[in-house]
Amino acid sequence: MLKIEFLGSGNAAGVPVWGCRCSACLQAQTDPAKRRRSASLAIHTGEGVTLVDAGLTDLAERFSFDSVKRVLLTHFHMDHVQGLFHLRWSEEARQIPVFRPDDPLGADDLYKHPGVFQFQPPFKPFDSVEWPGFRVVALPLIHSRETFGYLISNGDYCMAYLTDTAGFPAETLSYLQRYPVDDLVLDCSEPPRESMPRNHNDLNTALDLWRHSGATRLWLTHISHRLDCWLEHSAATLPEGVHIARDGMLFEIEGVVELDNDT
Amino acid sequence: MLKIEFLGSGNAAGVPVWGCRCSACLQAQTDPAKRRRSASLAIHTGEGVTLVDAGLTDLAERFSFDSVKRVLLTHFHMDHVQGLFHLRWSEEARQIPVFRPDDPLGADDLYKHPGVFQFQPPFKPFDSVEWPGFRVVALPLIHSRETFGYLISNGDYCMAYLTDTAGFPAETLSYLQRYPVDDLVLDCSEPPRESMPRNHNDLNTALDLWRHSGATRLWLTHISHRLDCWLEHSAATLPEGVHIARDGMLFEIEGVVELDNDT
Ligand SMILES: [Mn+2]
Ligand SMILES: [Mn+2]
Ligand SMILES: [Mn+2]
Ligand SMILES: [Mn+2]
Ligand SMILES: [Zn+2]
Ligand SMILES: [Zn+2]
Repeated sequence: MLKIEFLGSGNAAGVPVWGCRCSACLQAQTDPAKRRRSASLAIHTGEGVTLVDAGLTDLAERFSFDSVKRVLLTHFHMDHVQGLFHLRWSEEARQIPVFRPDDPLGADDLYKHPGVFQFQPPFKPFDSVEWPGFRVVALPLIHSRETFGYLISNGDYCMAYLTDTAGFPAETLSYLQRYPVDDLVLDCSEPPRESMPRNHNDLNTALDLWRHSGATRLWLTHISHRLDCWLEHSAATLPEGVHIARDGMLFEIEGVVELDNDT
Repeated sequence: MLKIEFLGSGNAAGVPVWGCRCSACLQAQTDPAKRRRSASLAIHTGEGVTLVDAGLTDLAERFSFDSVKRVLLTHFHMDHVQGLFHLRWSEEARQIPVFRPDDPLGADDLYKHPGVFQFQPPFKPFDSVEWPGFRVVALPLIHSRETFGYLISNGDYCMAYLTDTAGFPAETLSYLQRYPVDDLVLDCSEPPRESMPRNHNDLNTALDLWRHSGATRLWLTHISHRLDCWLEHSAATLPEGVHIARDGMLFEIEGVVELDNDT
Protein backbone atom coordinates (compact mmCIF):
# COMPACT_ATOMS: atom_id res chain seq x y z
CA MET A 1 0.00 0.00 0.00
CA LEU A 2 1.43 3.36 -1.05
CA LYS A 3 -0.74 6.46 -0.96
CA ILE A 4 0.59 9.94 -1.59
CA GLU A 5 -1.64 12.68 -0.18
CA PHE A 6 -1.20 16.32 -1.12
CA LEU A 7 -1.58 18.17 2.18
CA GLY A 8 -1.00 21.48 0.46
CA SER A 9 -0.35 22.86 -3.03
CA GLY A 10 0.16 26.56 -2.31
CA ASN A 11 3.06 28.99 -2.12
CA ALA A 12 4.09 30.78 1.09
CA ALA A 13 1.16 33.22 0.93
CA GLY A 14 -1.37 30.47 0.22
CA VAL A 15 -4.74 31.01 -1.40
CA PRO A 16 -6.64 33.05 -0.28
CA VAL A 17 -4.01 35.68 0.42
CA TRP A 18 -4.89 37.70 3.53
CA GLY A 19 -6.95 40.71 2.46
CA CYS A 20 -6.86 39.94 -1.27
CA ARG A 21 -9.99 40.48 -3.37
CA CYS A 22 -8.74 38.90 -6.61
CA SER A 23 -10.96 36.34 -8.27
CA ALA A 24 -8.95 33.33 -7.04
CA CYS A 25 -8.87 34.55 -3.46
CA LEU A 26 -12.57 35.42 -3.37
CA GLN A 27 -13.47 31.97 -4.69
CA ALA A 28 -11.18 30.28 -2.16
CA GLN A 29 -12.81 32.22 0.66
CA THR A 30 -16.20 30.70 -0.11
CA ASP A 31 -15.12 27.31 -1.50
CA PRO A 32 -12.73 25.33 0.75
CA ALA A 33 -11.86 23.07 -2.20
CA LYS A 34 -10.11 26.02 -3.83
CA ARG A 35 -7.91 26.86 -0.84
CA ARG A 36 -4.20 26.20 -1.04
CA ARG A 37 -2.03 25.72 2.00
CA SER A 38 1.74 25.27 2.06
CA ALA A 39 2.97 22.69 -0.45
CA SER A 40 3.54 19.37 1.33
CA LEU A 41 2.81 15.64 1.16
CA ALA A 42 1.91 12.76 3.45
CA ILE A 43 3.16 9.39 2.19
CA HIS A 44 1.03 6.62 3.67
CA THR A 45 2.24 3.01 3.79
CA GLY A 46 1.44 -0.01 5.96
CA GLU A 47 4.16 1.24 8.32
CA GLY A 48 2.64 4.69 8.87
CA VAL A 49 3.09 8.25 7.60
CA THR A 50 6.13 10.03 6.17
CA LEU A 51 5.65 13.79 6.02
CA VAL A 52 7.33 15.58 3.12
CA ASP A 53 7.64 19.12 4.48
CA ALA A 54 5.68 20.43 7.43
CA GLY A 55 4.32 23.86 6.54
CA LEU A 56 0.82 23.04 7.80
CA THR A 57 0.22 24.09 11.37
CA ASP A 58 -2.55 21.62 12.16
CA LEU A 59 -0.47 18.47 11.74
CA ALA A 60 -1.10 17.44 15.36
CA GLU A 61 -4.83 17.34 14.59
CA ARG A 62 -4.36 15.49 11.30
CA PHE A 63 -1.84 12.82 12.31
CA SER A 64 -1.52 10.89 15.54
CA PHE A 65 1.94 10.90 17.08
CA ASP A 66 2.16 7.13 16.67
CA SER A 67 1.42 7.29 12.94
CA VAL A 68 4.25 9.69 12.02
CA LYS A 69 7.42 7.72 11.32
CA ARG A 70 9.65 10.45 9.89
CA VAL A 71 9.79 13.89 8.31
CA LEU A 72 11.55 14.66 5.05
CA LEU A 73 12.32 18.36 4.56
CA THR A 74 12.99 19.96 1.18
CA HIS A 75 14.45 23.07 2.85
CA PHE A 76 14.19 25.28 5.91
CA HIS A 77 11.93 28.10 4.69
CA MET A 78 9.13 28.74 7.16
CA ASP A 79 6.36 27.72 4.76
CA HIS A 80 7.96 24.25 4.71
CA VAL A 81 8.87 23.72 8.38
CA GLN A 82 6.48 25.88 10.38
CA GLY A 83 4.36 23.00 11.65
CA LEU A 84 7.34 21.45 13.48
CA PHE A 85 7.55 24.31 15.99
CA HIS A 86 4.38 23.16 17.65
CA LEU A 87 4.86 19.40 17.29
CA ARG A 88 8.36 19.42 18.78
CA TRP A 89 7.01 19.88 22.32
CA SER A 90 5.51 16.41 22.35
CA GLU A 91 6.78 14.54 25.41
CA GLU A 92 6.65 11.05 23.91
CA ALA A 93 9.77 8.93 24.43
CA ARG A 94 10.11 7.93 20.76
CA GLN A 95 11.99 10.47 18.68
CA ILE A 96 10.93 11.25 15.12
CA PRO A 97 13.82 11.36 12.64
CA VAL A 98 13.99 14.39 10.34
CA PHE A 99 15.83 14.08 7.02
CA ARG A 100 17.04 17.29 5.41
CA PRO A 101 19.44 19.17 3.20
CA ASP A 102 22.71 20.50 4.64
CA ASP A 103 21.55 23.84 6.04
CA PRO A 104 23.48 24.79 9.17
CA LEU A 105 21.01 27.53 10.15
CA GLY A 106 17.83 25.48 10.05
CA ALA A 107 14.81 27.59 11.02
CA ASP A 108 14.73 29.90 14.03
CA ASP A 109 15.59 27.86 17.19
CA LEU A 110 14.61 24.45 15.81
CA TYR A 111 18.14 22.97 15.97
CA LYS A 112 18.64 24.42 19.46
CA HIS A 113 15.34 23.03 20.77
CA PRO A 114 14.49 20.06 18.54
CA GLY A 115 12.27 18.49 21.20
CA VAL A 116 10.88 15.21 19.90
CA PHE A 117 12.62 15.58 16.52
CA GLN A 118 15.96 14.00 15.79
CA PHE A 119 17.76 15.76 12.96
CA GLN A 120 19.65 13.23 10.88
CA PRO A 121 23.01 13.84 9.21
CA PRO A 122 22.11 15.88 6.13
CA PHE A 123 21.58 14.15 2.79
CA LYS A 124 24.25 14.62 0.16
CA PRO A 125 23.08 15.16 -3.43
CA PHE A 126 21.65 11.93 -4.91
CA ASP A 127 21.76 10.09 -1.57
CA SER A 128 19.09 7.43 -1.55
CA VAL A 129 17.34 5.67 1.29
CA GLU A 130 14.92 2.77 1.45
CA TRP A 131 12.01 2.75 3.90
CA PRO A 132 9.25 0.15 4.27
CA GLY A 133 7.12 0.58 1.15
CA PHE A 134 9.16 3.11 -0.85
CA ARG A 135 12.53 4.53 -1.75
CA VAL A 136 13.66 8.15 -1.81
CA VAL A 137 16.49 9.91 -3.71
CA ALA A 138 17.56 13.47 -2.83
CA LEU A 139 17.79 15.65 -5.95
CA PRO A 140 19.49 19.08 -5.70
CA LEU A 141 17.36 22.06 -6.74
CA ILE A 142 18.03 25.76 -7.35
CA HIS A 143 16.57 27.99 -4.64
CA SER A 144 17.56 30.79 -2.27
CA ARG A 145 18.85 28.23 0.20
CA GLU A 146 20.02 24.61 0.18
CA THR A 147 17.05 22.63 -1.19
CA PHE A 148 16.36 19.04 -2.24
CA GLY A 149 13.52 17.63 -4.25
CA TYR A 150 12.75 13.95 -3.72
CA LEU A 151 12.27 11.08 -6.10
CA ILE A 152 9.70 8.79 -4.45
CA SER A 153 9.49 5.34 -5.96
CA ASN A 154 8.09 1.91 -5.33
CA GLY A 155 8.53 -0.95 -7.77
CA ASP A 156 7.30 0.34 -11.11
CA TYR A 157 6.00 3.66 -9.92
CA CYS A 158 8.01 6.88 -9.62
CA MET A 159 7.07 10.42 -8.56
CA ALA A 160 9.54 13.31 -8.64
CA TYR A 161 8.48 15.93 -6.09
CA LEU A 162 10.50 19.05 -6.90
CA THR A 163 9.77 22.24 -4.96
CA ASP A 164 11.03 24.96 -4.33
CA THR A 165 13.15 25.56 -7.43
CA ALA A 166 13.91 27.90 -10.31
CA GLY A 167 15.01 25.56 -13.08
CA PHE A 168 17.10 22.45 -12.36
CA PRO A 169 20.83 21.86 -11.92
CA ALA A 170 22.18 19.98 -14.97
CA GLU A 171 22.85 16.83 -12.87
CA THR A 172 19.29 16.76 -11.59
CA LEU A 173 17.93 17.04 -15.11
CA SER A 174 20.12 14.22 -16.39
CA TYR A 175 19.19 12.06 -13.39
CA LEU A 176 15.51 12.56 -14.26
CA GLN A 177 16.17 11.77 -17.93
CA ARG A 178 17.72 8.42 -17.00
CA TYR A 179 14.78 7.55 -14.74
CA PRO A 180 11.23 6.74 -15.94
CA VAL A 181 9.24 9.32 -13.97
CA ASP A 182 5.47 8.84 -13.99
CA ASP A 183 4.48 12.02 -12.16
CA LEU A 184 6.64 15.12 -12.06
CA VAL A 185 5.29 17.40 -9.31
CA LEU A 186 6.91 20.74 -9.90
CA ASP A 187 7.16 24.20 -8.40
CA CYS A 188 5.07 26.47 -10.62
CA SER A 189 4.48 29.52 -8.47
CA GLU A 190 3.79 32.00 -11.26
CA PRO A 191 1.86 32.34 -14.54
CA PRO A 192 3.89 32.65 -17.77
CA ARG A 193 6.49 35.42 -17.48
CA GLU A 194 8.86 37.03 -19.96
CA SER A 195 11.75 35.80 -17.84
CA MET A 196 11.97 33.20 -15.06
CA PRO A 197 11.18 34.64 -11.60
CA ARG A 198 13.83 34.38 -8.87
CA ASN A 199 13.74 31.22 -6.75
CA HIS A 200 10.60 29.72 -8.35
CA ASN A 201 9.34 28.57 -11.73
CA ASP A 202 6.81 30.34 -13.88
CA LEU A 203 4.61 28.21 -16.14
CA ASN A 204 6.87 28.59 -19.18
CA THR A 205 9.85 27.29 -17.22
CA ALA A 206 7.83 24.46 -15.66
CA LEU A 207 6.59 23.24 -19.06
CA ASP A 208 10.10 23.44 -20.45
CA LEU A 209 11.58 21.45 -17.57
CA TRP A 210 8.86 18.84 -17.91
CA ARG A 211 9.51 18.39 -21.65
CA HIS A 212 13.23 17.99 -21.07
CA SER A 213 12.69 15.61 -18.13
CA GLY A 214 10.80 13.01 -20.14
CA ALA A 215 8.28 12.53 -17.31
CA THR A 216 4.86 11.17 -18.33
CA ARG A 217 2.66 13.65 -16.44
CA LEU A 218 3.29 17.10 -14.97
CA TRP A 219 1.57 18.37 -11.82
CA LEU A 220 1.86 22.04 -10.96
CA THR A 221 2.26 22.85 -7.26
CA HIS A 222 3.43 25.68 -4.93
CA ILE A 223 0.76 27.71 -6.70
CA SER A 224 0.16 31.43 -6.06
CA HIS A 225 -3.13 33.32 -6.39
CA ARG A 226 -1.62 34.90 -9.51
CA LEU A 227 -1.33 31.51 -11.19
CA ASP A 228 -4.84 30.54 -10.04
CA CYS A 229 -6.23 33.74 -11.61
CA TRP A 230 -4.40 33.02 -14.83
CA LEU A 231 -5.60 29.39 -14.87
CA GLU A 232 -9.19 30.49 -14.44
CA HIS A 233 -9.13 31.70 -18.03
CA SER A 234 -6.36 29.60 -19.55
CA ALA A 235 -6.34 26.15 -17.93
CA ALA A 236 -7.90 24.69 -21.08
CA THR A 237 -4.83 25.73 -23.06
CA LEU A 238 -2.47 23.57 -20.98
CA PRO A 239 -0.84 20.77 -23.00
CA GLU A 240 -2.16 17.24 -22.57
CA GLY A 241 -0.52 15.55 -19.57
CA VAL A 242 -0.33 18.76 -17.54
CA HIS A 243 -2.41 18.86 -14.35
CA ILE A 244 -2.99 21.25 -11.48
CA ALA A 245 -2.40 19.98 -7.94
CA ARG A 246 -5.09 20.49 -5.29
CA ASP A 247 -5.00 20.28 -1.51
CA GLY A 248 -6.31 16.88 -0.45
CA MET A 249 -5.50 15.17 -3.75
CA LEU A 250 -4.66 11.47 -3.24
CA PHE A 251 -2.48 9.21 -5.41
CA GLU A 252 -3.16 5.54 -4.72
CA ILE A 253 -0.29 3.66 -6.29
CA GLU A 254 -1.13 0.31 -7.92
CA GLY A 255 1.22 -2.58 -8.50
CA VAL A 256 3.16 -1.95 -5.35
CA VAL A 257 6.00 -4.34 -4.59
CA GLU A 258 5.81 -5.38 -0.94
CA LEU A 259 9.06 -4.65 0.86
CA ASP A 260 10.10 -6.17 4.17
CA ASN A 261 8.73 -4.03 6.96
CA ASP A 262 11.35 -4.10 9.68
CA THR A 263 9.44 -2.13 12.31
CA MET B 1 -16.15 50.01 23.52
CA LEU B 2 -13.21 47.98 24.80
CA LYS B 3 -13.30 44.20 24.60
CA ILE B 4 -10.36 42.00 25.44
CA GLU B 5 -10.56 38.53 23.90
CA PHE B 6 -8.29 35.69 24.99
CA LEU B 7 -7.29 34.04 21.71
CA GLY B 8 -5.16 31.54 23.56
CA SER B 9 -4.18 30.65 27.14
CA GLY B 10 -1.65 27.86 26.58
CA ASN B 11 2.10 27.42 26.71
CA ALA B 12 4.22 26.57 23.66
CA ALA B 13 3.12 22.92 23.62
CA GLY B 14 -0.56 23.83 24.01
CA VAL B 15 -3.21 21.47 25.33
CA PRO B 16 -3.56 18.76 24.11
CA VAL B 17 0.13 18.01 23.72
CA TRP B 18 0.78 15.93 20.60
CA GLY B 19 0.62 12.24 21.56
CA CYS B 20 -0.06 12.84 25.27
CA ARG B 21 -2.60 10.63 27.09
CA CYS B 22 -2.70 12.54 30.36
CA SER B 23 -6.09 13.42 31.76
CA ALA B 24 -5.94 17.08 30.64
CA CYS B 25 -4.89 16.19 27.11
CA LEU B 26 -7.49 13.43 26.70
CA GLN B 27 -10.24 15.81 27.84
CA ALA B 28 -9.03 18.53 25.48
CA GLN B 29 -9.07 16.09 22.59
CA THR B 30 -12.79 15.49 22.99
CA ASP B 31 -13.88 18.88 24.38
CA PRO B 32 -12.75 21.89 22.31
CA ALA B 33 -13.55 24.19 25.27
CA LYS B 34 -10.63 22.62 27.14
CA ARG B 35 -8.06 23.21 24.39
CA ARG B 36 -5.36 25.80 24.91
CA ARG B 37 -3.54 27.48 22.05
CA SER B 38 -0.65 29.92 22.33
CA ALA B 39 -1.27 32.68 24.88
CA SER B 40 -2.45 35.82 23.05
CA LEU B 41 -5.12 38.52 23.07
CA ALA B 42 -7.23 40.51 20.63
CA ILE B 43 -8.15 43.97 21.90
CA HIS B 44 -11.33 45.16 20.15
CA THR B 45 -12.29 48.84 20.05
CA GLY B 46 -14.40 50.99 17.73
CA GLU B 47 -11.24 51.50 15.67
CA GLY B 48 -10.57 47.79 15.06
CA VAL B 49 -8.35 45.04 16.48
CA THR B 50 -4.98 45.18 18.21
CA LEU B 51 -3.33 41.77 18.44
CA VAL B 52 -1.22 41.11 21.53
CA ASP B 53 1.11 38.36 20.30
CA ALA B 54 0.46 36.27 17.22
CA GLY B 55 1.12 32.63 18.07
CA LEU B 56 -2.12 31.44 16.47
CA THR B 57 -1.71 30.33 12.89
CA ASP B 58 -5.30 30.90 11.79
CA LEU B 59 -5.34 34.66 12.32
CA ALA B 60 -6.09 35.27 8.62
CA GLU B 61 -9.32 33.30 9.04
CA ARG B 62 -10.25 35.00 12.32
CA PHE B 63 -9.54 38.63 11.47
CA SER B 64 -10.02 40.52 8.22
CA PHE B 65 -7.00 42.44 7.01
CA ASP B 66 -8.92 45.71 7.33
CA SER B 67 -9.79 45.08 10.98
CA VAL B 68 -6.22 44.59 12.22
CA LYS B 69 -4.71 47.96 13.16
CA ARG B 70 -1.50 46.87 14.85
CA VAL B 71 0.36 44.01 16.53
CA LEU B 72 1.96 44.25 19.95
CA LEU B 73 4.58 41.56 20.62
CA THR B 74 5.70 40.50 24.09
CA HIS B 75 8.78 38.74 22.65
CA PHE B 76 10.05 36.83 19.64
CA HIS B 77 9.61 33.21 20.72
CA MET B 78 7.85 31.21 18.03
CA ASP B 79 4.78 30.46 20.13
CA HIS B 80 4.19 34.25 20.25
CA VAL B 81 5.00 35.28 16.65
CA GLN B 82 4.38 32.24 14.50
CA GLY B 83 1.16 33.53 12.95
CA LEU B 84 2.95 36.49 11.37
CA PHE B 85 4.92 34.28 8.97
CA HIS B 86 1.81 33.54 6.99
CA LEU B 87 0.11 36.94 7.29
CA ARG B 88 3.16 38.89 6.13
CA TRP B 89 2.62 37.87 2.50
CA SER B 90 -0.53 39.94 2.22
CA GLU B 91 -0.21 42.28 -0.75
CA GLU B 92 -2.37 45.09 0.62
CA ALA B 93 -0.88 48.58 0.35
CA ARG B 94 -1.49 49.52 3.99
CA GLN B 95 1.26 48.36 6.32
CA ILE B 96 0.49 47.03 9.79
CA PRO B 97 2.73 48.46 12.52
CA VAL B 98 4.32 45.96 14.91
CA PHE B 99 5.37 47.14 18.38
CA ARG B 100 7.97 45.07 20.17
CA PRO B 101 10.81 44.77 22.66
CA ASP B 102 14.39 45.48 21.55
CA ASP B 103 15.39 42.08 20.15
CA PRO B 104 17.80 42.43 17.22
CA LEU B 105 17.33 38.82 16.08
CA GLY B 106 13.56 38.77 15.85
CA ALA B 107 12.29 35.39 14.66
CA ASP B 108 13.77 33.50 11.72
CA ASP B 109 13.65 35.76 8.61
CA LEU B 110 10.84 38.04 9.80
CA TYR B 111 12.97 41.20 9.91
CA LYS B 112 14.51 40.38 6.53
CA HIS B 113 11.12 39.76 4.88
CA PRO B 114 8.58 41.72 6.95
CA GLY B 115 6.12 41.89 4.05
CA VAL B 116 3.06 43.82 5.12
CA PHE B 117 4.40 44.38 8.65
CA GLN B 118 6.25 47.52 9.65
CA PHE B 119 8.45 46.95 12.68
CA GLN B 120 8.43 50.05 14.85
CA PRO B 121 11.41 51.33 16.83
CA PRO B 122 11.49 49.06 19.88
CA PHE B 123 9.81 50.10 23.11
CA LYS B 124 12.04 51.10 25.99
CA PRO B 125 11.03 49.91 29.47
CA PHE B 126 7.94 51.79 30.71
CA ASP B 127 7.32 53.49 27.37
CA SER B 128 3.66 54.24 27.03
CA VAL B 129 1.50 54.85 23.99
CA GLU B 130 -2.10 55.92 23.55
CA TRP B 131 -4.31 54.43 20.86
CA PRO B 132 -8.00 55.10 20.17
CA GLY B 133 -9.82 53.47 23.09
CA PHE B 134 -6.91 52.44 25.31
CA ARG B 135 -3.41 53.06 26.55
CA VAL B 136 -0.49 50.66 26.81
CA VAL B 137 2.66 50.69 29.00
CA ALA B 138 5.58 48.32 28.32
CA LEU B 139 6.68 46.53 31.51
CA PRO B 140 10.00 44.62 31.51
CA LEU B 141 9.77 40.93 32.43
CA ILE B 142 12.30 38.18 33.21
CA HIS B 143 12.55 35.59 30.43
CA SER B 144 15.13 33.87 28.25
CA ARG B 145 15.01 36.78 25.82
CA GLU B 146 14.00 40.45 25.86
CA THR B 147 10.33 40.44 26.90
CA PHE B 148 7.69 43.03 27.78
CA GLY B 149 4.37 42.60 29.48
CA TYR B 150 1.76 45.26 28.79
CA LEU B 151 -0.43 47.34 31.04
CA ILE B 152 -3.67 47.89 29.10
CA SER B 153 -5.87 50.62 30.51
CA ASN B 154 -8.86 52.74 29.66
CA GLY B 155 -10.29 55.29 32.04
CA ASP B 156 -10.94 53.45 35.28
CA TYR B 157 -10.05 49.99 34.07
CA CYS B 158 -6.60 48.42 34.03
CA MET B 159 -5.34 44.97 33.00
CA ALA B 160 -1.70 43.89 33.37
CA TYR B 161 -0.90 41.19 30.81
CA LEU B 162 2.40 39.68 31.89
CA THR B 163 3.72 36.66 30.00
CA ASP B 164 6.30 35.10 29.54
CA THR B 165 8.12 35.67 32.82
CA ALA B 166 9.78 34.05 35.84
CA GLY B 167 9.16 36.53 38.62
CA PHE B 168 9.26 40.31 38.01
CA PRO B 169 12.08 42.85 37.91
CA ALA B 170 11.86 45.08 41.01
CA GLU B 171 10.91 48.13 38.89
CA THR B 172 8.01 46.27 37.29
CA LEU B 173 6.72 45.20 40.69
CA SER B 174 6.88 48.73 42.09
CA TYR B 175 5.20 50.11 38.95
CA LEU B 176 2.33 47.65 39.49
CA GLN B 177 2.12 48.56 43.17
CA ARG B 178 1.63 52.24 42.30
CA TYR B 179 -1.09 51.42 39.77
CA PRO B 180 -4.59 50.11 40.64
CA VAL B 181 -4.63 46.91 38.54
CA ASP B 182 -8.05 45.25 38.22
CA ASP B 183 -6.94 42.12 36.39
CA LEU B 184 -3.43 40.70 36.56
CA VAL B 185 -3.05 38.13 33.76
CA LEU B 186 0.08 36.22 34.59
CA ASP B 187 2.33 33.49 33.22
CA CYS B 188 1.63 30.40 35.30
CA SER B 189 2.99 27.58 33.19
CA GLU B 190 3.53 25.05 35.97
CA PRO B 191 1.80 23.61 39.06
CA PRO B 192 3.37 24.38 42.47
CA ARG B 193 7.07 23.51 42.50
CA GLU B 194 9.70 23.39 45.22
CA SER B 195 11.63 26.07 43.34
CA MET B 196 10.63 28.42 40.52
CA PRO B 197 11.08 26.87 37.05
CA ARG B 198 13.39 28.63 34.56
CA ASN B 199 11.78 31.29 32.36
CA HIS B 200 8.21 30.77 33.63
CA ASN B 201 6.22 30.95 36.85
CA ASP B 202 4.90 28.03 38.79
CA LEU B 203 1.68 28.55 40.79
CA ASN B 204 3.49 29.37 44.04
CA THR B 205 5.44 32.15 42.31
CA ALA B 206 2.35 33.45 40.51
CA LEU B 207 0.33 33.69 43.75
CA ASP B 208 3.24 35.41 45.46
CA LEU B 209 3.64 37.97 42.68
CA TRP B 210 -0.10 38.64 42.70
CA ARG B 211 -0.14 39.28 46.46
CA HIS B 212 2.79 41.67 46.20
CA SER B 213 1.31 43.44 43.17
CA GLY B 214 -1.88 44.53 44.93
CA ALA B 215 -3.98 43.61 41.86
CA THR B 216 -7.66 42.86 42.52
CA ARG B 217 -7.95 39.63 40.52
CA LEU B 218 -5.39 37.13 39.20
CA TRP B 219 -5.84 35.22 35.94
CA LEU B 220 -3.50 32.33 35.22
CA THR B 221 -2.39 31.99 31.60
CA HIS B 222 0.35 30.31 29.45
CA ILE B 223 -0.92 27.10 31.03
CA SER B 224 0.67 23.68 30.44
CA HIS B 225 -1.05 20.28 30.52
CA ARG B 226 0.79 19.72 33.80
CA LEU B 227 -0.98 22.65 35.42
CA ASP B 228 -4.33 21.58 33.93
CA CYS B 229 -3.88 18.10 35.44
CA TRP B 230 -3.04 19.61 38.80
CA LEU B 231 -6.03 21.99 38.63
CA GLU B 232 -8.38 19.10 37.90
CA HIS B 233 -8.01 18.02 41.51
CA SER B 234 -6.97 21.25 43.21
CA ALA B 235 -8.72 24.21 41.52
CA ALA B 236 -11.11 24.46 44.47
CA THR B 237 -8.18 25.22 46.75
CA LEU B 238 -7.20 28.38 44.85
CA PRO B 239 -7.56 31.57 46.91
CA GLU B 240 -10.56 33.81 46.26
CA GLY B 241 -9.84 36.20 43.40
CA VAL B 242 -7.73 33.69 41.47
CA HIS B 243 -9.12 32.55 38.11
CA ILE B 244 -8.03 30.31 35.26
CA ALA B 245 -7.91 31.80 31.77
CA ARG B 246 -9.62 29.96 28.90
CA ASP B 247 -9.31 30.30 25.14
CA GLY B 248 -12.16 32.45 23.86
CA MET B 249 -12.74 34.24 27.18
CA LEU B 250 -14.02 37.79 26.63
CA PHE B 251 -13.65 40.81 28.93
CA GLU B 252 -16.16 43.52 28.09
CA ILE B 253 -14.98 46.60 29.88
CA GLU B 254 -17.68 48.89 31.34
CA GLY B 255 -17.38 52.60 32.05
CA VAL B 256 -15.12 53.20 29.11
CA VAL B 257 -14.04 56.77 28.47
CA GLU B 258 -14.56 57.54 24.77
CA LEU B 259 -11.37 58.79 23.18
CA ASP B 260 -11.17 60.62 19.87
CA ASN B 261 -10.92 58.09 17.09
CA ASP B 262 -8.69 59.61 14.46
CA THR B 263 -9.09 56.94 11.78
MN1 LIG C 1 7.99 27.58 -0.46
MN1 LIG D 1 11.33 28.24 -0.31
MN1 LIG E 1 5.59 31.34 25.50
MN1 LIG F 1 8.74 32.63 25.66
ZN1 LIG G 1 -5.58 37.03 -4.51
ZN1 LIG H 1 -0.90 15.92 28.52
